[in-house]
Amino acid sequence: MIMVSVMYPNQAGSKFDMDYYTNTHLPLVAERWGPLGLKGATVVKGLAGPEPGSPATYQVMALVEFETSEAFEKAVAAHGEEIFGDIPNFTDTQPVVQINDVVA
Amino acid sequence: MIMVSVMYPNQAGSKFDMDYYTNTHLPLVAERWGPLGLKGATVVKGLAGPEPGSPATYQVMALVEFETSEAFEKAVAAHGEEIFGDIPNFTDTQPVVQINDVVA
Repeated sequence: MIMVSVMYPNQAGSKFDMDYYTNTHLPLVAERWGPLGLKGATVVKGLAGPEPGSPATYQVMALVEFETSEAFEKAVAAHGEEIFGDIPNFTDTQPVVQINDVVA
Repeated sequence: MIMVSVMYPNQAGSKFDMDYYTNTHLPLVAERWGPLGLKGATVVKGLAGPEPGSPATYQVMALVEFETSEAFEKAVAAHGEEIFGDIPNFTDTQPVVQINDVVA
């Protein structure tokens, strides 16, 4: 199992439309990638940094599970342009994306 | 449910002792915080950035679930010094830590 983390920086003055993200973007991801190896996704909203009241580094993080790296690469090849092209519709930040191996 | 993300940057030349982390640090966390509201933890290892072959931003990420922010704050107050003080035993990087609300 691999996990793709998509983390949207909490930049001062940036926008993030949680309503569009939840009701339009995430269903699009599920619809396109569900048949291509997407196993599940967790979405979290940054509340604070390590000290109470300090800002979170990322305002939103999506943790997306795929069966394999190869499945994810095929899913990106098939629908990445549409899915990544939808990002400017809900945020003006650039997400930090990486592919991870789930070890424990 | 909240999720505390602890993300260790993938700095050039940095060290990360995965054996110590897995066999000593994580069991310490489970032992100290298990009775204080820790619900579970996922550990992932960064494989690559968004392009195949590009470096991951974080070499290791721990995603730690607690019942509430208050439970996490109490757990830190009780055992944070010991747990955070153990970090230099397995890495010379400073983790990026934030508290998140699990929304989906």
